[in-house]
Amino acid sequence: MIRVGILGARGYTAGEALRLLVNHPEVELTCLMARGEQPEPVAVSFPSLRGMIDLDVEPTDAEAMAARCDVVFFCLPHTTAQEFAPVFLNAGVRIIDGSADFRLDSIEEYERTYKVKHLAPELNDRFPYALPELFADDLKGAQAAACPGCYPTAAILALAPLMGAGDLFEYERVIIDAMTGVSGAGKSLNPDFLFVECNESIRPYNVGKHRHRPEIVEKLSRVAGHPIRVTFTPHLVPISRGILATSTVRTKAPVTLEQLHERYRAFYEGKPFIRLLPAGELPNTGAVEKSNFCDIGVTVDEAAGNVIINSAIDNLTKGSTGQGVQVMNLMFGLPETLGLLPSSERRVHA
Amino acid sequence: MIRVGILGARGYTAGEALRLLVNHPEVELTCLMARGEQPEPVAVSFPSLRGMIDLDVEPTDAEAMAARCDVVFFCLPHTTAQEFAPVFLNAGVRIIDGSADFRLDSIEEYERTYKVKHLAPELNDRFPYALPELFADDLKGAQAAACPGCYPTAAILALAPLMGAGDLFEYERVIIDAMTGVSGAGKSLNPDFLFVECNESIRPYNVGKHRHRPEIVEKLSRVAGHPIRVTFTPHLVPISRGILATSTVRTKAPVTLEQLHERYRAFYEGKPFIRLLPAGELPNTGAVEKSNFCDIGVTVDEAAGNVIINSAIDNLTKGSTGQGVQVMNLMFGLPETLGLLPSSERRVHA
Amino acid sequence: MIRVGILGARGYTAGEALRLLVNHPEVELTCLMARGEQPEPVAVSFPSLRGMIDLDVEPTDAEAMAARCDVVFFCLPHTTAQEFAPVFLNAGVRIIDGSADFRLDSIEEYERTYKVKHLAPELNDRFPYALPELFADDLKGAQAAACPGCYPTAAILALAPLMGAGDLFEYERVIIDAMTGVSGAGKSLNPDFLFVECNESIRPYNVGKHRHRPEIVEKLSRVAGHPIRVTFTPHLVPISRGILATSTVRTKAPVTLEQLHERYRAFYEGKPFIRLLPAGELPNTGAVEKSNFCDIGVTVDEAAGNVIINSAIDNLTKGSTGQGVQVMNLMFGLPETLGLLPSSERRVHA
Amino acid sequence: MIRVGILGARGYTAGEALRLLVNHPEVELTCLMARGEQPEPVAVSFPSLRGMIDLDVEPTDAEAMAARCDVVFFCLPHTTAQEFAPVFLNAGVRIIDGSADFRLDSIEEYERTYKVKHLAPELNDRFPYALPELFADDLKGAQAAACPGCYPTAAILALAPLMGAGDLFEYERVIIDAMTGVSGAGKSLNPDFLFVECNESIRPYNVGKHRHRPEIVEKLSRVAGHPIRVTFTPHLVPISRGILATSTVRTKAPVTLEQLHERYRAFYEGKPFIRLLPAGELPNTGAVEKSNFCDIGVTVDEAAGNVIINSAIDNLTKGSTGQGVQVMNLMFGLPETLGLLPSSERRVHA
Repeated sequence: MIRVGILGARGYTAGEALRLLVNHPEVELTCLMARGEQPEPVAVSFPSLRGMIDLDVEPTDAEAMAARCDVVFFCLPHTTAQEFAPVFLNAGVRIIDGSADFRLDSIEEYERTYKVKHLAPELNDRFPYALPELFADDLKGAQAAACPGCYPTAAILALAPLMGAGDLFEYERVIIDAMTGVSGAGKSLNPDFLFVECNESIRPYNVGKHRHRPEIVEKLSRVAGHPIRVTFTPHLVPISRGILATSTVRTKAPVTLEQLHERYRAFYEGKPFIRLLPAGELPNTGAVEKSNFCDIGVTVDEAAGNVIINSAIDNLTKGSTGQGVQVMNLMFGLPETLGLLPSSERRVHA
Repeated sequence: MIRVGILGARGYTAGEALRLLVNHPEVELTCLMARGEQPEPVAVSFPSLRGMIDLDVEPTDAEAMAARCDVVFFCLPHTTAQEFAPVFLNAGVRIIDGSADFRLDSIEEYERTYKVKHLAPELNDRFPYALPELFADDLKGAQAAACPGCYPTAAILALAPLMGAGDLFEYERVIIDAMTGVSGAGKSLNPDFLFVECNESIRPYNVGKHRHRPEIVEKLSRVAGHPIRVTFTPHLVPISRGILATSTVRTKAPVTLEQLHERYRAFYEGKPFIRLLPAGELPNTGAVEKSNFCDIGVTVDEAAGNVIINSAIDNLTKGSTGQGVQVMNLMFGLPETLGLLPSSERRVHA
Repeated sequence: MIRVGILGARGYTAGEALRLLVNHPEVELTCLMARGEQPEPVAVSFPSLRGMIDLDVEPTDAEAMAARCDVVFFCLPHTTAQEFAPVFLNAGVRIIDGSADFRLDSIEEYERTYKVKHLAPELNDRFPYALPELFADDLKGAQAAACPGCYPTAAILALAPLMGAGDLFEYERVIIDAMTGVSGAGKSLNPDFLFVECNESIRPYNVGKHRHRPEIVEKLSRVAGHPIRVTFTPHLVPISRGILATSTVRTKAPVTLEQLHERYRAFYEGKPFIRLLPAGELPNTGAVEKSNFCDIGVTVDEAAGNVIINSAIDNLTKGSTGQGVQVMNLMFGLPETLGLLPSSERRVHA
Repeated sequence: MIRVGILGARGYTAGEALRLLVNHPEVELTCLMARGEQPEPVAVSFPSLRGMIDLDVEPTDAEAMAARCDVVFFCLPHTTAQEFAPVFLNAGVRIIDGSADFRLDSIEEYERTYKVKHLAPELNDRFPYALPELFADDLKGAQAAACPGCYPTAAILALAPLMGAGDLFEYERVIIDAMTGVSGAGKSLNPDFLFVECNESIRPYNVGKHRHRPEIVEKLSRVAGHPIRVTFTPHLVPISRGILATSTVRTKAPVTLEQLHERYRAFYEGKPFIRLLPAGELPNTGAVEKSNFCDIGVTVDEAAGNVIINSAIDNLTKGSTGQGVQVMNLMFGLPETLGLLPSSERRVHA
């Protein structure tokens, strides 16, 4: 059994990790910690887990946690992960980092984007970017992993199959309009996220300057092999969980729906968490709620000379700690889907 | 492995059964059927299950289903269950009936309430009322079971511990105000259940004449040992899943919160799906979403001379096929929580 | 034109006052003030009013406001209204108080309920309780008025017609279960009111101890002529605006639906904001959204020996500053419906 | 007083027309008709209007309606407007048509898009396209008007100021991603619009083939003076009312935010229903709910070489019969804002 700890065990991504890990057959939850003075029952932050986990959330003590865990999920805001990483790395404990601290290869870009000085640039290389569908090889044997942002997960998975295909697509300039549920904002006490402010409202925000843009740019550029330009427009919509990304790319030559679909099919063959929809069908966030799937639908708009890729994820699952569990499985040499899907022999009975 | 079939495999309660059964370690799904002319993939009705179940939903053929299953979940409207029951009973197949057809002991009351003639009154005795927290003994060895309605599950579990305690409570006359999410209405094409009609609205309906009232009356009377009078006022609120029942009962003598809480604790001791909240805490539907728990909170209103019991369930899980899985487990002699909760040794790690 | 000011002009009830007053034919908005250091445009707090009101929200200066207004709406938390009242009363300015500070006749009950010392008990008599359907006479010539709480408005209007009818109803002990939209909590930065915490949840709260209970008790007792006992159970549901109150009262003798309906019809005859629904119809909050109506539906539950009264209001309109405008109209001798409804000759054209 | 009738007086756009017209100072509602056999009270379809309008909704009789009205709002599905138009035109009654029947200049495009034969192509010229901010001159003296679709209103108003500016913008190829509330689908009994199917879901639909695309293309091309290519991706989100359109256009030369903002300011100067937000601010649908405003925010994404225009409307107001009232005002020579905004002298009091 893998002994798992969670640091920052009061927010939504921690709650999602707990929901999944409590059912994971190879995991023993051993330590939950968060800021605070006193231990408190898990049910205070997560009433749905009442009676499911008999651990308290303890005041943070990284050394103590390191002694009780084989791997730790960092459910922390950026800058905090940098602080805690050395303790665990030195203790030989693995880290699944959900923060932005080690996502970007470019420390300069990180500092420009997050407007802080990076405290541990020397550790950046030890955190491969953990988007398994594209970069699974980097995770084997890794001690640490930087899990992608929620928007980047949805957007990069949607666009990766087009990168580099310069004969057909003007892939160097892409448009991504994305919509997120409110849990993407975490539990932060900001009036913008009060029920009344969000309900019955669709609200674009941080247009042209969202922090996830540099991550999307860097990773798509890596896939393409050269720089990509991205316009990324996020919108807040009144759902709790889910991201829908609509990505539009110009075509340079006629492309049929069948060709486009086949390109995606081939690209994601054997990837258990990508559900490429039949040609003509479109994803929606409801269908991936509380699952680790990324559903993708493709459309050719011949009249306008564009392809449109719609992708849907649950921002807390595939967009956060669900992907973290997938990454943990890979780091520990377990089946990628363990604890996330019924085993494949159980999935098919006909 | 128990071979399980689902009849009526297109509605919300069938979807919930599938969501749970696909993860049940002792179940093999072998047959899904529903009205219609052609087989169609499960994902047409349940996009969230795409890639999880490799069965088609086939046109209904009860004999064929009986040959391929050990147990069948009836996800059918009332009157239809009566039609299909004989085929399966005669074939020795077990039935978990989610309809109202065999819930009431009184055929007369059934006919008055549902305004139809009962087609199989002679089978009524073979379907014990399947509320395991109260009547588990009836399920051992049973070939068939009538699962409670969603409102009755929430209301009866809230009030059962008070029944018969005539020294303290005027339990013979209870007030139940309950609120349900819209999935309680099924997928019926009724304009009342369109998004725009439900959103931003709280709507009482069928006040004083809801079909679930006779069921609550009959079962509470059974627990009490004599007739109970119930005012039941249901309300539709804009959530997808969940029922919150607020039950009020007069006191006849002073009762402390501690006494009331202890009464409930003792009554439900050892019942894995009842989460009695600590004194002073109150349940909400969000905390039981997609779980088989019934959360209960108790309050003493000394000034007014009443106790208030708040109970919360997910109407599709504990209020429908989740309870059906619990019932199946009991009928087959499996642990009650199998496929519904992590095993108890995995639940506690501290 | 009446010169109107609003104190506390950043919260939801102030926004509702502005929405209504900007269309009121006898009103000139002259002064908006709230806590803060700098004036800011109205659109910062109320984007919907952009371009509609050319006033800034200025830092609070009660003397300056008193000099520019004939009447002031207090959109203030309790205790604050007490502080500001003397300035305006001394200046001869009228006050429509939306806070709880002067609602209760009993200062003792106020202090017990709000857990503070009342700062201006000598002013309490100058603020009649402003529920016009019951106590309109108190408002004529009044310089100040204490507008009812949102829940009390819905509950008292529902129950007043039964008070004192001891031959038919056990009206001395009533059960009120009520559901509110989240704007009832104001814009307070409490995690309980974040979108994700409220969405998909029905949550009872403050059961048996909500601050509005003493107000309901005192006013119903006033109508009845002697003390009434009330159990009041509020619930938070995921809508922005609206309250639905379900009140249950035992009958002492057989009552027909026609009798009950006629009692309400007679009681509210000529009251323009009470819409008594036809016998058999039930109200819902959607139908009163952004209106000053209170819709009421009545039901007789003969089997259980109860009557059930459902009432619906918009908590920000009839439950707050909409009622405040109605009160202002009465205080100034204007038609009660001015600015709230089309004039009656325009309402009927057939 | 203008005598106004509504044909198709049961759907959401008719309800919105009634909500507005009942408060319009120059309007007398004289006749409401819809399919059906019997007259029924307005409150059956529109409970919020109970007590506000004393007309029944009568079975449709176009001749009778023509005799009682000066102008008729067609709240009809496409093809039906064509049927009824001749009766009213011949009778000298004005028509505000909310259907798609006369929106397109090209009958061929209409027939291709709506997959029906146009029944009255000879009347097409009598219905100018009624987007007043762009084509107000066409409405003066017109007997009939074709109101724009909801999406086209939001998209065309967002993009019109860029049309023709070939020195700065690659305006011939635009990307529009739009999100709509569910009332856009009308009251149609389609399972896709049930509460449970819409709630907690973001769903793209008709990608690359929505019926509103040809309308956007034709009208933007008219403004530009030559053909425009449009990719239009609509999404359904769980709100009742509102459209948010995010339009992206490539720049051909550096553009500053100030330049872009000034272009929009100048273009819409004096248009009372366009609220151009201050540079750096972004619209949201909540702020235009139940108003006839179109809020517009502009952003320059220098890094990617695009401008992004966000526009927000209420699909039932500015996107439907609210705009219809604005059009009626223009057709009758009344102030454009009558019945839709407080008069301008009342709007500004400082």
